[in-house]
Amino acid sequence: MTETAAPSKLVLTLSCPDQPGIVHAVSGVIGSVEGNIIQSQQFGDPDSGLFFMRVEIDSPVGRAPVEEAMADIAKRFEATWNIDDLGRPLRTIIMVSREGHCLTDLLYRQRSQGLPIEVVAVVGNHPDLAPVAQFYGVPFLNIPVTKDTKARAEAELLDLVRSENVELIVLARYMQILSEKVCEEMAGRIINIHHSFLPSFKGARPYAQAHDRGVKLIGATAHYVTPDLDEGPIIEQDVTRVTHADSTPDMVSLGQDVERRVLAQAVRWHAERRVLLDGARTVVFAR
Amino acid sequence: MTETAAPSKLVLTLSCPDQPGIVHAVSGVIGSVEGNIIQSQQFGDPDSGLFFMRVEIDSPVGRAPVEEAMADIAKRFEATWNIDDLGRPLRTIIMVSREGHCLTDLLYRQRSQGLPIEVVAVVGNHPDLAPVAQFYGVPFLNIPVTKDTKARAEAELLDLVRSENVELIVLARYMQILSEKVCEEMAGRIINIHHSFLPSFKGARPYAQAHDRGVKLIGATAHYVTPDLDEGPIIEQDVTRVTHADSTPDMVSLGQDVERRVLAQAVRWHAERRVLLDGARTVVFAR
Amino acid sequence: MTETAAPSKLVLTLSCPDQPGIVHAVSGVIGSVEGNIIQSQQFGDPDSGLFFMRVEIDSPVGRAPVEEAMADIAKRFEATWNIDDLGRPLRTIIMVSREGHCLTDLLYRQRSQGLPIEVVAVVGNHPDLAPVAQFYGVPFLNIPVTKDTKARAEAELLDLVRSENVELIVLARYMQILSEKVCEEMAGRIINIHHSFLPSFKGARPYAQAHDRGVKLIGATAHYVTPDLDEGPIIEQDVTRVTHADSTPDMVSLGQDVERRVLAQAVRWHAERRVLLDGARTVVFAR
Amino acid sequence: MTETAAPSKLVLTLSCPDQPGIVHAVSGVIGSVEGNIIQSQQFGDPDSGLFFMRVEIDSPVGRAPVEEAMADIAKRFEATWNIDDLGRPLRTIIMVSREGHCLTDLLYRQRSQGLPIEVVAVVGNHPDLAPVAQFYGVPFLNIPVTKDTKARAEAELLDLVRSENVELIVLARYMQILSEKVCEEMAGRIINIHHSFLPSFKGARPYAQAHDRGVKLIGATAHYVTPDLDEGPIIEQDVTRVTHADSTPDMVSLGQDVERRVLAQAVRWHAERRVLLDGARTVVFAR
Repeated sequence: MTETAAPSKLVLTLSCPDQPGIVHAVSGVIGSVEGNIIQSQQFGDPDSGLFFMRVEIDSPVGRAPVEEAMADIAKRFEATWNIDDLGRPLRTIIMVSREGHCLTDLLYRQRSQGLPIEVVAVVGNHPDLAPVAQFYGVPFLNIPVTKDTKARAEAELLDLVRSENVELIVLARYMQILSEKVCEEMAGRIINIHHSFLPSFKGARPYAQAHDRGVKLIGATAHYVTPDLDEGPIIEQDVTRVTHADSTPDMVSLGQDVERRVLAQAVRWHAERRVLLDGARTVVFAR
Repeated sequence: MTETAAPSKLVLTLSCPDQPGIVHAVSGVIGSVEGNIIQSQQFGDPDSGLFFMRVEIDSPVGRAPVEEAMADIAKRFEATWNIDDLGRPLRTIIMVSREGHCLTDLLYRQRSQGLPIEVVAVVGNHPDLAPVAQFYGVPFLNIPVTKDTKARAEAELLDLVRSENVELIVLARYMQILSEKVCEEMAGRIINIHHSFLPSFKGARPYAQAHDRGVKLIGATAHYVTPDLDEGPIIEQDVTRVTHADSTPDMVSLGQDVERRVLAQAVRWHAERRVLLDGARTVVFAR
Repeated sequence: MTETAAPSKLVLTLSCPDQPGIVHAVSGVIGSVEGNIIQSQQFGDPDSGLFFMRVEIDSPVGRAPVEEAMADIAKRFEATWNIDDLGRPLRTIIMVSREGHCLTDLLYRQRSQGLPIEVVAVVGNHPDLAPVAQFYGVPFLNIPVTKDTKARAEAELLDLVRSENVELIVLARYMQILSEKVCEEMAGRIINIHHSFLPSFKGARPYAQAHDRGVKLIGATAHYVTPDLDEGPIIEQDVTRVTHADSTPDMVSLGQDVERRVLAQAVRWHAERRVLLDGARTVVFAR
Repeated sequence: MTETAAPSKLVLTLSCPDQPGIVHAVSGVIGSVEGNIIQSQQFGDPDSGLFFMRVEIDSPVGRAPVEEAMADIAKRFEATWNIDDLGRPLRTIIMVSREGHCLTDLLYRQRSQGLPIEVVAVVGNHPDLAPVAQFYGVPFLNIPVTKDTKARAEAELLDLVRSENVELIVLARYMQILSEKVCEEMAGRIINIHHSFLPSFKGARPYAQAHDRGVKLIGATAHYVTPDLDEGPIIEQDVTRVTHADSTPDMVSLGQDVERRVLAQAVRWHAERRVLLDGARTVVFAR
């Protein structure tokens, strides 16, 4: 993150206990630097009593002065907040096992569809997907995980996160469970794709469970990872139709389409600063 | 069911242990009366080992001779089967409590959109929806249910079923649980709408559960009623998108749209003989 | 519209040429009466150069003082704007011919699902749907339209609009074309449902056209009515899947479901002040 | 196509003028070799008077004897028909220009999701996508097309089609129009993806057209190519939601997801022999 003095586009997100005057104060800061609001969304959650805000700003002066002016406001309103250059790619690690549909999709979108992430490394507990990373010119690290090596593997991961200033970890069908330590250090910054329409079919082999139950739709869920497995705040979900003629392997194949679409959507929204945490839920300021 | 000698359109459904020769035998019967197949679907389930078939027949001779010829075939293949006049409305009871969205929708579709049911009566445990039934010229029976009167209420229902030759019971947001006795007597002929995307959020207050979990889609499930609550074979499901800004009452309102659409679809498919039981699952020969 | 001095919830919408300071000025007005922003959305259209805003306000003082304070701001920014009590039902006329699916649906939603309209009258060029209006306790006016009587019929309609302070006209499958005069007098306040996914299949018999073309999805479009037929700004669209086995009448029946859902959604969004005109397009601040 | 004597799974498709006895005759053939029907669908189109059939057969004797027995039947019923080993990959050419989303998707699905095509070559009028083909180990041919070289380029293509026994050409965002000669030689065997919901926005720059019209859904259409541009029989369509905040480039990006999904679905259904031509329309025996 370099500080810019030239004109810039910024994105500000903020959440704080709801009270009068927040929008006026924030728009005052923007006005004080003669900035203009391109687009904005605000929402007050009556359940949690929190207020949420996302603003895209056209600023004649760069990020630093706005950041400075915002700091006072944020303090006054006890806000959790962030300001950044609009569209700046997040430094990201993608973690995988053997299935490549989500990885292939994310790398393709990063290169060709403006997904604002910068993939620092692909980390696999198996080496299978190294060629995919290589094709897209991204470093691939094989960090195998066994019961015995798990602690060491995670230490290696955290070293990488720190040395590379990683801002986001995407579990793209990574079939390992991260320890509480990692979940907490990266809270709100690890996105997982679960191959079911949560909370249906938690745990292992969800498509087999779905087939046995005879459901007519299968789905996928992208969520932030918390120590409480499959219970993290949901960012995005979608479904697709299946019939009696679809076997479990058919469902796996159909489900992969939903998984990659849902994960890509969640990563895009996160990277565009559209997702704010509201306790165990999320506020998503979709386009 | 009157027997017709004149030309007629028929619908035949059949399930039996899978083995060679079934389609040939059935098409032989159709050919023997110089009938023609308008449309047909067949499916062999590798899991259950059962074969399923639905045929629409253009017959020059009416139902009785086809029925007779089929009886031998059915015996030979140990088939569960049914033959009927295509489009004959099923004699139906709709059961309700206080919420009218599903009832209104079914009666409207019955009158104006060719939903092939003949509504013998609307039965409510509350009197609230009597005017809706009245508007559509359908008898309304108020059968209140309390802990003490439940047995008597169900006896009254079963009397009605028998005296009126009822073929289908639709639970259109009927908030009572039917006894095992009723479930068994009408097995495969009671359709319920559950206001969640089963198996998520079983039991009471599913929208409140969905809101608390922060899901991004809510759904509804139409299923056959079995003694095992919320576990009956699923006929149809659908979902609709919700956001952080939708309160539980908003979800209730949005969900009602899905509920009525899913229930109407399931009733239509059942009445058109498109749904066949395959153990705990269904085969749905959709259009 | 009565003026309230007591605490109230308000909804403000505004569009104006984009420039810095709008949000700050508006939030300043809200702050000046010690109001609080419940929810808000803003959008600047780079194509038209217009800025759009919708704010829900929790105000301790009622609408009048806010309105007064806003008037100055609006003048300064050359804004088109509106302030109203949040959730106040719009005084509405529903116009129909013979098909009742949209009318039935709107009246049901108005009564049972909080659709914020007050139906002043149902106007039909045929008397067929009078019983539906009657069931919901709404006056029904039969105003037949022939080539000769069209001018008189429209005069009667406009008299009704004026004498009853009608704010919205919904064409719920009203099969007549309104004159330029009516379109202009009620510009931005007449919503039509067109039974195709515009701009496909403009004009008459869209389902027959769709069947002939062999499309795999059919749709419906709700739009504001302008003198330029089928070209008004689109508010909402949706589709449903069809197959080779669906005849034109099947498509008509399937399409009715989409029509009533799309129209109800458009009416709700309009009545909740979520739709703003942006030239030939709309800005929809959906939930 | 090698002839097999061992047990095999076969897929038979057939269309012919509708008349009694077709299914009985076909199932008789299957019975004569002691085969079994795994799954089947039949449909008689009242408009065209044609009957359509698709059967998956479990045969103890391989394809040749069934083929032979079918030949007589087919002659008797004046049928267009095909019999093949179930799941045999079709020999396919994928044609591209510069945009890689559809190519990447098809090759990924071919390798990892059981899409039953064998990609003989990727042909590009630009060299940009050669690395993608190379990554998947598929030959890439750069055949540039200018006004002057078009005839020669098509001759080269047809040589390739003949020498490699190509059964299917997929236009995966190939921005050139094929000549009538190619369209006719490969009639019913060229699939194109059009980046709009046809018949809306025919011709060039459909997303710009869609943006200007302010539609709320954008779509894609996969269709067989005929000399009549954008008018070929539709195989599959789908849509995705857009809002006022989506610029034309946003729509392009969102649309790419629909395009690749719709094209892959159409190619899968075609390759699984699920699509039969019914004049200017298609019968799709979806799962």
